[in-house]
Amino acid sequence: MLEKIADTLEKVRKNTPLVQAITNYVTIGDCANILLCFGASPAMVEAKAEVEQFVGMASALYINLGTLTGEQYEASILAAKKAAELGVPVVLDPVACGAIPRKIEIIKELFAAKAITAVKGNAGEIKALAGFGGKVRGVDSVDDGDNIIDACKSLAKQYNIIVAATGKTDVLTDGARTCLIENGTSLFTLITGSGCMVGALTAAAVGIAKDKFVGCAAALLAMSLAGENAEKSLEKPLPGSFHVKLMDSIYSLSRDDVIKRGKIKCM
Amino acid sequence: MLEKIADTLEKVRKNTPLVQAITNYVTIGDCANILLCFGASPAMVEAKAEVEQFVGMASALYINLGTLTGEQYEASILAAKKAAELGVPVVLDPVACGAIPRKIEIIKELFAAKAITAVKGNAGEIKALAGFGGKVRGVDSVDDGDNIIDACKSLAKQYNIIVAATGKTDVLTDGARTCLIENGTSLFTLITGSGCMVGALTAAAVGIAKDKFVGCAAALLAMSLAGENAEKSLEKPLPGSFHVKLMDSIYSLSRDDVIKRGKIKCM
Amino acid sequence: MLEKIADTLEKVRKNTPLVQAITNYVTIGDCANILLCFGASPAMVEAKAEVEQFVGMASALYINLGTLTGEQYEASILAAKKAAELGVPVVLDPVACGAIPRKIEIIKELFAAKAITAVKGNAGEIKALAGFGGKVRGVDSVDDGDNIIDACKSLAKQYNIIVAATGKTDVLTDGARTCLIENGTSLFTLITGSGCMVGALTAAAVGIAKDKFVGCAAALLAMSLAGENAEKSLEKPLPGSFHVKLMDSIYSLSRDDVIKRGKIKCM
Repeated sequence: MLEKIADTLEKVRKNTPLVQAITNYVTIGDCANILLCFGASPAMVEAKAEVEQFVGMASALYINLGTLTGEQYEASILAAKKAAELGVPVVLDPVACGAIPRKIEIIKELFAAKAITAVKGNAGEIKALAGFGGKVRGVDSVDDGDNIIDACKSLAKQYNIIVAATGKTDVLTDGARTCLIENGTSLFTLITGSGCMVGALTAAAVGIAKDKFVGCAAALLAMSLAGENAEKSLEKPLPGSFHVKLMDSIYSLSRDDVIKRGKIKCM
Repeated sequence: MLEKIADTLEKVRKNTPLVQAITNYVTIGDCANILLCFGASPAMVEAKAEVEQFVGMASALYINLGTLTGEQYEASILAAKKAAELGVPVVLDPVACGAIPRKIEIIKELFAAKAITAVKGNAGEIKALAGFGGKVRGVDSVDDGDNIIDACKSLAKQYNIIVAATGKTDVLTDGARTCLIENGTSLFTLITGSGCMVGALTAAAVGIAKDKFVGCAAALLAMSLAGENAEKSLEKPLPGSFHVKLMDSIYSLSRDDVIKRGKIKCM
Repeated sequence: MLEKIADTLEKVRKNTPLVQAITNYVTIGDCANILLCFGASPAMVEAKAEVEQFVGMASALYINLGTLTGEQYEASILAAKKAAELGVPVVLDPVACGAIPRKIEIIKELFAAKAITAVKGNAGEIKALAGFGGKVRGVDSVDDGDNIIDACKSLAKQYNIIVAATGKTDVLTDGARTCLIENGTSLFTLITGSGCMVGALTAAAVGIAKDKFVGCAAALLAMSLAGENAEKSLEKPLPGSFHVKLMDSIYSLSRDDVIKRGKIKCM
């Protein structure tokens, strides 16, 4: 699996997938920047009048429900439906779906349109979506992660999608295959948008990978390893500096990092 | 007072107050990040359809009028009224109220709803609100700060709120008590959003402090001291580097910094 | 020309032009921050109800079409028309106009209102606007820059505006005068928003310069030289660190940098 992941990351850098994003305004700049660091081409195209036309040019569509304005709500539905029609993969980040009922509404609409390729959330969000009662505090998970593998599998099977739940251990499943990723750092919780950023990277990798499951694994592992490298590059674990180094580390992540230090266990 | 402030800052870190923010898109990411550095949990929930439900879970609501879209305008009113009903404290940042009449409109609506716990602005904004003719240049104060203490007191008494005016000397008053804070650095003027960030921190501290006045003082002093620490950590006073170090410095601010270096004079 | 440019940059720092911006949410914070680093005063005033009143106070208006919401669309038209009426210069950044037909629509409306002083885009965008068939990939130019000087001149003459096309070599023309700038760094392509940022700086310089053409040249050259300085200050070419150093470098750019290292060729 590590070889396949390393190949996928190289493929991203070589092919520069165009990732269209409809995403929250808190981390929209971070998502664009990290996509560039990853080797992808970000296009934050989210105006209702533009999304359907644009998605035909995109390698993948990333929908993040963070600060969902009225216009973004409508644009997300239009873009996702068009993407489904055209076979463009869609990655959904169900931000705060455990705390805000309106998010569930749009997620159901997206699922019903069979538009979603993969969902990436934190443990609390994924459990909430799967009906496993995830514990959230606003946009953060405070869930202990109990039963998270079962929750992911259940959600994956119910909608025939790939599901990724990030946390101390990342869980990835398409219902049949399941992988656990043990890399990462607690510093991710000190900055806003680590979740959004890995979601954007997932869209980039899924947009280029033949096997979408491997694409998801590549994005999750890259982010976790880059977090470790960023932490190691710091004298002290400080949030502002970590933020900068995280960008640097995604950009400079090497094949060796993946092969030698990747901790992924697949079943 | 310094002991009380240090206790409040520790209480924030221990209790992770959930701060709901309806804020401008220029510094929305910085506000979320600095809240995390401060020990709070940011939730930039501002969609009209979400704010009333969400504010019931929040420790405090921060309303910043910077880039007030049509949807944010309506959401701010809804959220503030609901917060008032539920007893959730609301901190208002009246960005550019001296230069843009529309801001005064919404501020009056918020005051009329008796929804505001504290207002934090620059000298020009506070004097404009108090009817003391503050001098502003766009979103910046170019006011000399003359009569600023009187302006703060007058505004505090008129609406029965806490008023904070930031500047070379920060002024804080609830009409009865008044404190002056002499810490800080001129580097704050080299980055956008220092004002927004201290406003967000004020919401966090007010959300957790029994004495809201002490909460406001804690946020103002923490920001000023962190600014000093950030400046000291730099070889040269450069804006990009200062921005990063400011985040680091809020995160690593110590009880000792507050007790030994805090310059607050209360009357 | 280098002396005139250095004078203009000093004039910006001395006079602090107020730049009103209606700009995309991806880099809105970066644009505000770099304007401060440049010595200007940013005001991201874009609410439909505010723009006309505010533009009367501004030294220049910057319109960037990146993430053009419905409200921003209407606000841009209103603000630009008012600016034209009042003689406030307007700099337009036609982001992604080669990929998204809706952008062309608003650009034509702005041109028709004779509201635009200068257009700054990448080679792909400018060629698309000039009808020279520019090659774009989402928001990025993948154009080889063939005929770019002719495209710039043609567009400048057609609408009687200044045209700047950024790239490895920056091209600037008002139809009569043409300058080429050879400074810069490839690191600009590793971060989002270099284009937006130089657009914002252009508005600042145009807002203060008697000769608007020199103003444009000053902004382009300052950005290119600051990019070089930022690159030189790094041990390794890494995007996150470059982003921070770019801000620092705009702030600390010296007259000497301009005079001794500026590579501008005017015809």
